[in-house]
Amino acid sequence: MSNTKRIIVIGGSAAGPKTAAKARRLDYDAEITIIQKARDLSMASCGYPYYVGGLFDDRNQLVSTPAGVVRDPKFFLNAKGINARTETEATAIDRKNRTIACRDLRAGTTEVLPYDKLVLCTGATPVIPPVPGKDLKGITTLQSMSDADYLRRVCDEGQIKKAVIIGGGLIGIETCEALELAGIEITVIELLPQLLTFLDWEMAKLVENHVRSRSANVITGNGLAEFLGENGRLTGVKLQNGTELPCELAVVAVGVRPNVKLAADAGLAVGALGGIVVDEHMKTSDPDIYAAGDCVECRHRITGKPAYSPMGDLANLQGRVAGENVVRGDTAAFPGTIQTGICKIFDYIAGTTGLSETAARKHGLTDIETVINANPDKPVFMGGKLIVSKMIVDRATRRLLGYQAVGPGDVSKQITAAAMAITAEMTVDDLLSLDFPYAPPFSPAIDHIITTAHIMQNKLEGRMRGISAGEVFRKLQGPDKPFLLDARGPDEYEASRLGLGETLIPLGALRRRLGELPADKGREIVCYCKLSLRGYEAATVLMANGWTDIKVMEGGLAAWPFPMEK
Amino acid sequence: MSNTKRIIVIGGSAAGPKTAAKARRLDYDAEITIIQKARDLSMASCGYPYYVGGLFDDRNQLVSTPAGVVRDPKFFLNAKGINARTETEATAIDRKNRTIACRDLRAGTTEVLPYDKLVLCTGATPVIPPVPGKDLKGITTLQSMSDADYLRRVCDEGQIKKAVIIGGGLIGIETCEALELAGIEITVIELLPQLLTFLDWEMAKLVENHVRSRSANVITGNGLAEFLGENGRLTGVKLQNGTELPCELAVVAVGVRPNVKLAADAGLAVGALGGIVVDEHMKTSDPDIYAAGDCVECRHRITGKPAYSPMGDLANLQGRVAGENVVRGDTAAFPGTIQTGICKIFDYIAGTTGLSETAARKHGLTDIETVINANPDKPVFMGGKLIVSKMIVDRATRRLLGYQAVGPGDVSKQITAAAMAITAEMTVDDLLSLDFPYAPPFSPAIDHIITTAHIMQNKLEGRMRGISAGEVFRKLQGPDKPFLLDARGPDEYEASRLGLGETLIPLGALRRRLGELPADKGREIVCYCKLSLRGYEAATVLMANGWTDIKVMEGGLAAWPFPMEK
Repeated sequence: MSNTKRIIVIGGSAAGPKTAAKARRLDYDAEITIIQKARDLSMASCGYPYYVGGLFDDRNQLVSTPAGVVRDPKFFLNAKGINARTETEATAIDRKNRTIACRDLRAGTTEVLPYDKLVLCTGATPVIPPVPGKDLKGITTLQSMSDADYLRRVCDEGQIKKAVIIGGGLIGIETCEALELAGIEITVIELLPQLLTFLDWEMAKLVENHVRSRSANVITGNGLAEFLGENGRLTGVKLQNGTELPCELAVVAVGVRPNVKLAADAGLAVGALGGIVVDEHMKTSDPDIYAAGDCVECRHRITGKPAYSPMGDLANLQGRVAGENVVRGDTAAFPGTIQTGICKIFDYIAGTTGLSETAARKHGLTDIETVINANPDKPVFMGGKLIVSKMIVDRATRRLLGYQAVGPGDVSKQITAAAMAITAEMTVDDLLSLDFPYAPPFSPAIDHIITTAHIMQNKLEGRMRGISAGEVFRKLQGPDKPFLLDARGPDEYEASRLGLGETLIPLGALRRRLGELPADKGREIVCYCKLSLRGYEAATVLMANGWTDIKVMEGGLAAWPFPMEK
Repeated sequence: MSNTKRIIVIGGSAAGPKTAAKARRLDYDAEITIIQKARDLSMASCGYPYYVGGLFDDRNQLVSTPAGVVRDPKFFLNAKGINARTETEATAIDRKNRTIACRDLRAGTTEVLPYDKLVLCTGATPVIPPVPGKDLKGITTLQSMSDADYLRRVCDEGQIKKAVIIGGGLIGIETCEALELAGIEITVIELLPQLLTFLDWEMAKLVENHVRSRSANVITGNGLAEFLGENGRLTGVKLQNGTELPCELAVVAVGVRPNVKLAADAGLAVGALGGIVVDEHMKTSDPDIYAAGDCVECRHRITGKPAYSPMGDLANLQGRVAGENVVRGDTAAFPGTIQTGICKIFDYIAGTTGLSETAARKHGLTDIETVINANPDKPVFMGGKLIVSKMIVDRATRRLLGYQAVGPGDVSKQITAAAMAITAEMTVDDLLSLDFPYAPPFSPAIDHIITTAHIMQNKLEGRMRGISAGEVFRKLQGPDKPFLLDARGPDEYEASRLGLGETLIPLGALRRRLGELPADKGREIVCYCKLSLRGYEAATVLMANGWTDIKVMEGGLAAWPFPMEK
């Protein structure tokens, strides 16, 4: 049949197979081919750290359907009617003749394949800093099945004692956990002043404290200068400040770069962030060529600017859109990203959606308000675990711009809820009386994100003035130290306290002990407690009694990221 | 100061203390009094089943702050500046003179208290069916601290061997779990044809199957006729069909009735659902009297009609609104309920938000589409657990009307996400490409609710025709049995199957075994697999090959609530 549409998908990891499968479901007759350079297909690459860490042992699960069938070319042919050619590299696109050239990496043969629609799902490649020693044995990334196999072998064999992770982002952090579980002594190196740059500093610091508490070392604000080696094998890394860290293994996780050579060589538009430019239909600058996954830039739904979000879920969603459009002709649209992310690190979870305060300010959104809220994810009697969250809203529109959460509690639900709210362009006011699923095994009577919105409302209405732990810490170093009022009980104070000159007056005694507060009613007073509800109530008492510069330390001691006396 | 506002709150469980505390934070000088009939204040009553079930042992945790301070009158006075009078019953409201009469239940004295603003948080009372024997010893509800104390004692003492729970709603189900954990043999009786009527029947049946699997007996469609007893003690219950069930304990949980006598006696408007009528400001028909919590009706945000939602979270949220309005004068609004609910029952979770299909049809919303989706909450290699969900949308607007989910998986996150989407009046199309927090410990690459939306889109676009397990079951009883195509693999078929005359053709073999399908291309064929993705792909193959009446059994075998051959 000459009417049979020929669809070629270059790339077989996440976006590629999704594109091909979706196209097949909408066009039974199309000739659909996947060109995949690697040997494996449809790898659950986000699962690599958990395979390395021993959370499961059967590597085939990473390349199998939930029913246990390996997603190999035979599976694609029989179950999907898709011709998947693995170990085959696409080498050039001839847009004029609508063909691609490809090479069979086993046989060494080359071939030219015609297409009616082409979809580029070429993914991304980990960046390796161009420093001396980068080709030593013992240096790896965690990007491919063979990387995962190698690191798993390292963990199983138990020969390696020390490892350095270069890069404190998502993959670096996940790899840190995986290797630490195998008993390897870990140091994480991050060039920037904090881990997980999708978080604001004070939130990232809480994660860093947790990582340290699990005996992994963390060095921030210091980059890699050189890999050190002997006889071709890694023996250590040297940092930019001269520090040398002995290690037998280095995992490089400083980020990825979209694979756009094929696209660029063919003259397709590539954006400022380095990704292939696509419209909302995932169409490139050539109307017969689409692109999806880690190789593209897409629109940020809040800023409207291009964003680079190499995430497995977006790759799948974009693939679904591209797969429909190559068949139906741009009936589906991908609305963009809000750069949602989450990771597990030991007993902690860190997640984000929308803009951090830092990102908002960088994008020129400066008329914003923030709240930090520390509260358990469930009632204490149900074993509730702490969540520390930070909400960012636009003051003028009261729209939610971003939400971050860290802690041992159910951060996933929080970020999911916030992602939905941001997508729907909801305001703080829309969040004040949400009818959420409440039962003690799942949440407190008022869910964490709702209490965060309540605090935000109180701040926006001027009922409460907040101050972050970081700002308090900074002020305590200067000449005009605020008066610190700890509103907890004596038992709590004995168990744990700042020890920075604070005054303990339990909230229940405050009304009769106002004489212990500064005589100068204009003195800056910072109220806090464990989480800061009592701190807030103390602040209302002081304001009602004439003190004029009263602030609540947001998140209380639970969000204090600095050393404490005890 | 004669300008001091006098605020009286009647009721000290959930809405009352929240109202009082919020009012205090906004008005330092107001004279705020809580009148509470019971001895305890601010009880975490939703936690009673978990105290009974032994999830924690210290009952004081139910009446304590997270910092461990008991919320007694002294706490309210010292920490909040609120005068809480316990064991004091409000007996009448004199609206003309703006006073209430109350009686000290210990001293027996009565008193008249003036108010400027009055807030009724009188709660609700469990309904006890007026059947013979209802005053026998051994019959209880689970409504008060003393009920919780009694049932905990029953569990700890281990004397009682058999118990009957009257009512298969939230509290009945939670109590079932609590008592079963103590080794008591349980039967749950429900007058209606299913447990948990906030779910549609086929979803509730999955919960019922799980309850039975944990050796609790369930009897639906049969109500209580009589309590049987000897010497004043319960010995059994008799059902409406004559069945007698011996038991030493009966817990009545057939629902609650709002406590509105005080309001009704004072001439305040009471609605058709039995609750006090309030506007969005939580104001009753008297501008100086507000009401919040289990004693009020509120607006259903989807239907716009009054709804009765006696939930602890809504009580708190309404109290926050009432507390602000009695101080500021109707600046805050409560937008209404979408009747979200969730409960844990052994290793299963059941949740809902918005309208069930049954409720939608009852409210005249008949142009709707539904989808049932069964999928794990995480990748299989991360130990993903099943969620079976049901989505209901309005065909014309494509708006999400309701979402239910049951199963051992993370139902809480699903229902939270859906509650946010319904609140924001999102459409199916808004859900197709959500940027959610994805990492393997938390979700599959495409989150469950997103795949549900994908299936919904496929149905709305006519790409897929679905059929529920219930409908398949019904058709198999009749003369025109559909042809059943099981698209799983032989191993799966050997392990578990319907055994209802189905034909096994694995999806991967289907394209070459089309000859085994009915020769009559108009024959109704139902395709399925474990979850129904392969069932869907099989359907696309058959449709492309000329069969015209092809349906996919939604949720596959995972959502099949009837007995199976194995």
